[in-house]
Amino acid sequence: MGRKIEVTDVILRDAHQSLMATRMAMEDMVPACEYLDKAGYWSLECWGGATFDSCIRFLNEDPWERLRTFKQLLPNTRTQMLLRGQNLLGYRHYEDSVVSKFVEKAAENGMDVFRVFDALNDPRNLEVALNAVKRTGKHAQGTICYTISPVHTVEKFVEMAEQLVEMGVDSICIKDMAALLKPQPAYDIVKGIKDRCGKDLLVHVHVHSTTGVTLVSLMKAIEAGADIVDTSVSSISLGPGHNPTESLVEMLEGTGYETGLDLELIYKARDHFAQIRPRYKEFLSEVTGVETEIFKSQIPGGMLSNMESQLKQQGQGDRMKEVLEEVPRVREDAGFPPLVTPSSQIVGTQAVFNVMMGKYKVMTGEFSDLMLGYYGKTAAGKNPDVVATAKEFGKKDEITCRPADLLLPEWEKLESEAFKLEGNNGTPEDVLTYAMFPQVAPKFFKERADGPINVGKDPALTSAKADSSHPGYLAGPIEYEVTLNGNKRKVTVAPV
Amino acid sequence: MGRKIEVTDVILRDAHQSLMATRMAMEDMVPACEYLDKAGYWSLECWGGATFDSCIRFLNEDPWERLRTFKQLLPNTRTQMLLRGQNLLGYRHYEDSVVSKFVEKAAENGMDVFRVFDALNDPRNLEVALNAVKRTGKHAQGTICYTISPVHTVEKFVEMAEQLVEMGVDSICIKDMAALLKPQPAYDIVKGIKDRCGKDLLVHVHVHSTTGVTLVSLMKAIEAGADIVDTSVSSISLGPGHNPTESLVEMLEGTGYETGLDLELIYKARDHFAQIRPRYKEFLSEVTGVETEIFKSQIPGGMLSNMESQLKQQGQGDRMKEVLEEVPRVREDAGFPPLVTPSSQIVGTQAVFNVMMGKYKVMTGEFSDLMLGYYGKTAAGKNPDVVATAKEFGKKDEITCRPADLLLPEWEKLESEAFKLEGNNGTPEDVLTYAMFPQVAPKFFKERADGPINVGKDPALTSAKADSSHPGYLAGPIEYEVTLNGNKRKVTVAPV
Repeated sequence: MGRKIEVTDVILRDAHQSLMATRMAMEDMVPACEYLDKAGYWSLECWGGATFDSCIRFLNEDPWERLRTFKQLLPNTRTQMLLRGQNLLGYRHYEDSVVSKFVEKAAENGMDVFRVFDALNDPRNLEVALNAVKRTGKHAQGTICYTISPVHTVEKFVEMAEQLVEMGVDSICIKDMAALLKPQPAYDIVKGIKDRCGKDLLVHVHVHSTTGVTLVSLMKAIEAGADIVDTSVSSISLGPGHNPTESLVEMLEGTGYETGLDLELIYKARDHFAQIRPRYKEFLSEVTGVETEIFKSQIPGGMLSNMESQLKQQGQGDRMKEVLEEVPRVREDAGFPPLVTPSSQIVGTQAVFNVMMGKYKVMTGEFSDLMLGYYGKTAAGKNPDVVATAKEFGKKDEITCRPADLLLPEWEKLESEAFKLEGNNGTPEDVLTYAMFPQVAPKFFKERADGPINVGKDPALTSAKADSSHPGYLAGPIEYEVTLNGNKRKVTVAPV
Repeated sequence: MGRKIEVTDVILRDAHQSLMATRMAMEDMVPACEYLDKAGYWSLECWGGATFDSCIRFLNEDPWERLRTFKQLLPNTRTQMLLRGQNLLGYRHYEDSVVSKFVEKAAENGMDVFRVFDALNDPRNLEVALNAVKRTGKHAQGTICYTISPVHTVEKFVEMAEQLVEMGVDSICIKDMAALLKPQPAYDIVKGIKDRCGKDLLVHVHVHSTTGVTLVSLMKAIEAGADIVDTSVSSISLGPGHNPTESLVEMLEGTGYETGLDLELIYKARDHFAQIRPRYKEFLSEVTGVETEIFKSQIPGGMLSNMESQLKQQGQGDRMKEVLEEVPRVREDAGFPPLVTPSSQIVGTQAVFNVMMGKYKVMTGEFSDLMLGYYGKTAAGKNPDVVATAKEFGKKDEITCRPADLLLPEWEKLESEAFKLEGNNGTPEDVLTYAMFPQVAPKFFKERADGPINVGKDPALTSAKADSSHPGYLAGPIEYEVTLNGNKRKVTVAPV
């Protein structure tokens, strides 16, 4: 009997987020839960920022109710969620008591494993959330976002793992949201972590399949000692999604590693989702093959389409090549942040503005915040000239403290605002829903009683067009405040 | 500098055979040849049975002219073809002088590397073709068809490699046409061959991507010492096709292995084929994801759809499950042949007949020939009861000699038949075209002067529906002679 490789299936969250614009209705997941629950997974990822957002924005589903339903339908398997550290499921930093309250309520409603990450890999943005998870007695997984840059060495990733272990995490996740993790670094990082932190530390590897190389990376990660890997039931897999679970199981035959998964049950889940998939064709990712140029450009697919639409809105669609060349420069100026929500949008939009209006002639509020430390610390130092410009645009100073240290307690304020909204049910869960998505929650509370909308069953039920399905892509519109010649303007970037 | 891994790109042959029903017109390949030729490939596979067939059946293109054009457009890279041993590019055994003549003419017209295989892995069916290649001074590659059965052990494959080396091959190919080769056996077989035959023996690995595991298999094959691997430019890759070339290149970064391929040129070829691909949408494979149940059933996708259509034609479409269970039994009775053209069709059709009419109550002429040794020797012994039944149906005895030993010289007969056909140009090449496809060649000769038909540009130019695109699937209709209650009947199985 070989070493057991545990598997997390992302079919209930990241798979349809990556391939179906997060639109899958709970109703369409319920029939597969029994198969998935009995198949022998370590966990089933089923909740996160985009699914929460999509629930209230498009599906008129209460995300907390979805979580409770999953917990009920998956009695034998850990439920798992993705949490953006101090950002929780939203796009700003929350004050610590809100972070703790969110984790507490998620645990109470049925969440077992919390995968906590920060877009800048700043451990200070993870600490409060991880501690909150520990207090609930649930599984606290500290996450390292994988990216490529001159400063992102194997040693740096191993050091971050050490920091997370010192914080008391139950496991480490290497999160490769853009499918950039090649086999050799996958091996080296896992090996480095195991060597430094001890072989008993659980190492969990999450990869997307965009570039076509990452099933090989999972193989090498396993050879280096990885304990758990993420895959997705094959009928909703590949392209910008994930490697097929069935292929992982088969790949390991005879290698001395085995998943112990029940393929017959997975085939039943596969057949179910294969039947559901075509109903969501309006939202399906058009990409089914591989994209390898991302290794050169470092620009995730979703970010690319976002920048393209920004340029086109300004009638400058022919300047994409310049923008593509500008992105790595902007990223370097900002200290090489990984390109993942929200840093991918912030860097991408600034690159677009640089090309359209001249280098840092205009700066978004978000980019100036990034330059001044308001999102946290980046891996490398920043370009001091651009920091100076950011101070001018932002009219504020650089900070080096943990960003959330500057926030005042906000729970009572959120509570009183939320409780004023029509249809609010007076629970802390509703306060949290409002806190995460203050612009979307009011309409959701008002219409919640109408019950779920299944856009797969009846596409006419939604007027919204499919947004880009890339995991690093914002589901909702984002507003930027830009200052041009001293005048502030609002620029809204919406998914097309 | 790491060990160099050579690459054969199959974009000009197997890629469009597997994903576009072999329909790509020469006109649509020409613009990419310069990029491909300069990218640094070891070879470019560009000719084979199905492309030859498609040229004269659908595209009104002279396959010999296609070969000469490739040779001209690819001055820096070896051209490569797939040859079915004693079957050449047809579906029967040819007499030795025809085999030699074919190889001679292919070499003369520009072929550099001959990958020679036999559906039953009977080395006697390879010998004449391989010797003919050696005489021309071209590269003779002996091929092992990979399959899974109780008798197909690593040791057996290594033994076959030894036999091929004794025949004087320049390299060995492990051909995994059904994507069944998992990472561990890939490693073990390559390692076994290198250990037994010496590390200088070139080992070339050909895999399809159907099951999603074979890029990992290529990685393990490379670690075991494989010298050359087959991939395809990404825009025509994956599904029942091949692993993307770009992913292979990127996968190896930092591993100590490198291809030395010029990705920028490959991206240009990719962009070209990405633009061409949608034009052939009528013929595109519907499968873009993975199929892993083939590991259980051993039945390639193309064979599956063939059997389904046979059942439906008989109004017994609901009996597919029984047929799926029957196939492995029929395969075992026949001594575990690999399931590849033509053995996949022969075994599949017999399984259909067994289910519809009772076990071996009817036997196709082809199946009885297979049982009696007329296709060559299988890896395991055959079921003696079924051999006895085959003798009755076939009204002939079992043979143990090389099947082609029974054939009389046939070149002059073929020549005189071919030369009588309208439009025949009097060359040995035309005789060979006629010899390969006697039912299709007459029409082709007559209409050749009309010039090529590009069904991608104008789908109305062909009335034929897309046939299944699986590499193991017959492009044309096949006639079976069955005997039921002493009466002979002809059954024609045509692609749907």
